[in-house]
Order: sequence, then structure tokens, then C-alpha cells
Amino acid sequence: MLDYLIPRLSFAGGHLRPGDDGVDYLPRGRVVVTGDMLVGSTDVPPGAPMESVGWKAVTASLSDLAATGARPVLVFVEMGLPPEMELDELKRIWSGIEMARDRYSVMVAGGDTNSCRDPVLAVFALGEAERPVPRGGSRPGDLIGVTGTFGRAAAGLHSILTRDLDHSWEALRRSFLWPVARIEAGAVASRYATAMIDSSDGLARSLYDMSRNSGLGYLIERLPVDDEVTRYALTHGLDPERLVLGGGEEYELIITFDPSSERQLREELASVGCELIVIGRVVEGRGVWRVQDGAVVQVPELGWSHFGR
Amino acid sequence: MLDYLIPRLSFAGGHLRPGDDGVDYLPRGRVVVTGDMLVGSTDVPPGAPMESVGWKAVTASLSDLAATGARPVLVFVEMGLPPEMELDELKRIWSGIEMARDRYSVMVAGGDTNSCRDPVLAVFALGEAERPVPRGGSRPGDLIGVTGTFGRAAAGLHSILTRDLDHSWEALRRSFLWPVARIEAGAVASRYATAMIDSSDGLARSLYDMSRNSGLGYLIERLPVDDEVTRYALTHGLDPERLVLGGGEEYELIITFDPSSERQLREELASVGCELIVIGRVVEGRGVWRVQDGAVVQVPELGWSHFGR
Repeated sequence: MLDYLIPRLSFAGGHLRPGDDGVDYLPRGRVVVTGDMLVGSTDVPPGAPMESVGWKAVTASLSDLAATGARPVLVFVEMGLPPEMELDELKRIWSGIEMARDRYSVMVAGGDTNSCRDPVLAVFALGEAERPVPRGGSRPGDLIGVTGTFGRAAAGLHSILTRDLDHSWEALRRSFLWPVARIEAGAVASRYATAMIDSSDGLARSLYDMSRNSGLGYLIERLPVDDEVTRYALTHGLDPERLVLGGGEEYELIITFDPSSERQLREELASVGCELIVIGRVVEGRGVWRVQDGAVVQVPELGWSHFGR
Repeated sequence: MLDYLIPRLSFAGGHLRPGDDGVDYLPRGRVVVTGDMLVGSTDVPPGAPMESVGWKAVTASLSDLAATGARPVLVFVEMGLPPEMELDELKRIWSGIEMARDRYSVMVAGGDTNSCRDPVLAVFALGEAERPVPRGGSRPGDLIGVTGTFGRAAAGLHSILTRDLDHSWEALRRSFLWPVARIEAGAVASRYATAMIDSSDGLARSLYDMSRNSGLGYLIERLPVDDEVTRYALTHGLDPERLVLGGGEEYELIITFDPSSERQLREELASVGCELIVIGRVVEGRGVWRVQDGAVVQVPELGWSHFGR
């Protein structure tokens, strides 16, 4: 396996090379470090292509970087693989990792394989940012914006798990299997954001995370429901609002910002091909609420539950 | 679990804080990144204290840094834990991580828990070094030195697995359960080393790794056998040379250096409480050999086999 992997590692240009256990480079500024673990039995639905598993493991870590406004430099991948796994499966996982490497222009600078009953991909990402944005920096009166509509990945996962492989829902399944981290959007938004987080744990839970860190309240005035999700939900007897609030593995950014910077933020996001949907505002008092039928109601801390559990 | 873990993370002094998904800091020089994964079913023998599991996961990653000559700055820990694991067990693992944090003066700057059937600790370590030492830099004529005797961890593991818990072997068991990464030795040796590697995969396999990276040969003229390992092996009908060559989870450094720097290297290592045992020299031709009964014989690529497999 190492014979397969080592020649495929990027050379970071430092003193250490692929084949060494580490990698080195000379940063140009502040370094941001983050990581994410993908576990086969809980994060990969039956039938998901192995390439998607590698892609998603890298995307999830880079999305955490994006949410701080950092530009990714390198990822380091540690794999736990069942002893009975075929080399071909490893190659397909690795090919997904390389697809992500090329898409995000990041180095895959180190790797490591271990024997593990449950397949596990632990990805560690390192990036650079002048002023990393924390998730707890919101101020009362800030607007809450998101970089896209919600619920697509949750609907796509539902379609995969229920084996409703109708062609109409292909785009939703793709949203789940091939999500894209908002790197450029994170970098430009970081100049205006008071706080930022990615929505990988779902909209509601991510807002609760912001609330725990800021001690403030997050009031949703308009749910960023996706039209296709609404159609999917209606066809399948699901509650679209639940998919939007409680779905997960969606890599939009949630940004809080001063209302005076709305126009500039919107323009800058548009310049990197990304919309800004204002969904509410930051208020005093810890919690997450939404305006529903004219009343303010508390949002349950719905969140990403690993499927099947 | 996060309520338990987040307040226990170190604050790196940057823009991000515990509770954010990442950590940031301003490096003073060249950054070295490495990582290691510890898997419960293959790396932890029955009866090992949970504290030792956390300690070893951090030590293994820091030993990889030490082998480049880097001084550790921070570690990032991603855990996969079985859903049925008690909070008390997590606390004991974490307490081992904190013992290592204090021993090595490193920040535990990020953490993450996931559900996984096999307990897994993925540790990433970040350090700084002026000139990181690669494992493939040896030159023909270099001497091969090691920072201690070998076989202690292998004998200790044998004693644990065979439940020979005789008090005489307590120190050997401690070598396995509470190994120490050679941070200071790595930093001082990096000024003289042409190549360096830690011996975590065992002496033979580590030399083969050096050989693969340098294209040179490694000739062992004197095996660094530990006296206590010899006694243990005699008592238990084991081959001490096999424990020395094929044992693993030993965190000595293997250093190659120009013979002219031997005295200085020895003095500098002594100044950080570490010995230098010269075991052989680097020769032309790829491979690993030893002098045995006056003849040169090839060393089998014995190495660390995960126990029970």
C-alpha cells in the first residue's frame, strides 16, 4: 500500500519528501490548523462510491478551514482500513482524495495507513489566514447570512438510503456525494464577518454552536429552503423545514456581519460565484429562534444524526 | 463529551479559541507537520490502562517530529470512540493525553470525537525546525548511531500479553506502556545528522525505511541489545536478537552522521541526558546487513507486527 501511496504524495518543497513521515514548509503568515474524521460505519451510506468517500473526507476538513477564512495549503491523511479491503478500493478512495486535491489546489503532503475494523479517514488540514474568523464573534444587531439554500444533501441522502434512484433527484444525490467546500467565499467573507461557521452539522446545530460561543441569540426570519428540496419533500411525505434545519453534510457558510457591510459582502461573494441569502439577525439572549406564522418560536437543536442511529 | 473536552483544550493565543473547529498561531520559522494513528484493536493490548493509550498516541506523533529535529508546538486529536464507551474511559484517555501535553510542553489545541466501532486516536503534530532532517539523507561512510538500547518495549509487550506480571519485568512493561519521545535529543542531533528516523517500527524495518529513501546500505556491526531484555529473553526462551531487531513501539532515534562529528554529537546528546551507541555504518548498495560471527548476513525485514495478527 505504501508503495502505491508514497509516489502519489505532493512534494511541499521543503527539506522532507514523500517517504518521510512528515512534511515541512515555510508559512507566509498565520497558520490555521483543523481536522475532521470520516468513519465508514456512520458517515458512508451503502452504495456510496469509494471516490466520494475520499473526496468528502478532504472537503469536510477544507470546509472547516474555509469557515475561518483560511486558504488551504496542505492536508495530511491518516487511514484506518479493514485488513480485507482490496487495493482497488484504496485506489478509488485515493483517487477521490486526488480529485479534491486538484479542485482545491491543496497539497496532499502526508499519508499513513493502519489496520482498523471500521474504515476511518482522519484528515488534518493546514491553511493560512491573516485574520482567522472565530465562530463566537457575533454582535447583537448583526445580520445572519448563508451562501446557499439548504436541505439538498439531506434530501440526497434520503434518496440514497431509500433507494429511490429516480433520475429527477440525481442533482440532490450529487449534493450529498460531491459537496464543495466554500473556500473562495470564506476568504472574501472573512473581511466582513464577525463570526463564521460551516453548516456541516446542519443549520440549527451550527447556529446553536455559534450561540454557545458568543452567548447571543440567533433569530431566523426566513428559512433558506431549496426549491428542489421542497419538491422532493412533497413527493416523499417529508417536512422540508426539517430537512433544511436538521440536515447536515452541507458545506455552506453561515456568516454574521454588520448590516452596513451587506452590500459589499454581497458583491464580493458574487465575484466568486456565490450568493448571499440573509436569513435573520443576531439578538441578545442565548438560543436559536425562528419567526413562524408571525410568532417567535424556539428552534429545536436538530442536527445531523449519523444515519441509521 | 464536547462539554468535557472543549474547556480542556489549550488556547494557542490566536484568533480562534477552544470551541472553534480550528486553531491558529503565528509560526516563527519552518513548520513541520506529521501524524500517527493508534487503533484500539491492533495497537492496544488487553489490560493496558486507558491513560497509556492517550499518552502513547501523543508520544508516537511527537516522536515522528523529534526524528526530524523539530520542536513540537501543538497536537490536534481526532477520536473515534465506540458508542458504548463510558465517559469515564474517555476521561482516562484524555488524562493520558494531558500527561503527555505537560511532559512535552505542547498545546493540545484541537479535538474532535466521532462514533467508531474500533476505538481510534488520530493525532496530528505540528512543530518548528530550522532545518528538518529527512530519513533519506545518509551518505556512504556515515556512522549509524542510536539513542538507547533496544528490545525493551517488545519484551514488555510480551510480558503483558502472556500475563507474566512478575514484578521483575515492571520496568520493561513500563517501557511499552509509557514510552518517551526523544524530543531534546532530536533537536540537538539535527545539527549533525545527515538522516534521522525514529525506531517505532523496529530497528530492522526503520533501517530498511532509511535504505529505501537513500538508496544506500546499512551495516549493523554491533546490536544495541539491552541487558534486561537479554535476561527476559533467556527466562522465556525467546531470541533476544529478534526482540532487538524486530520489536517496535520503541521511540529511540536512529541517526546517521559523518564520523568527524561523533564526539560533538555524543557530547550534545549527553547534555540532554541521552547516550549515543554507534551500531554500524552506511555503505554502498541498497539493503540492511549485519556482521554475525565474522560474516556479513542480510537482516530480514522483521518489523513490528501488530500483536495477535
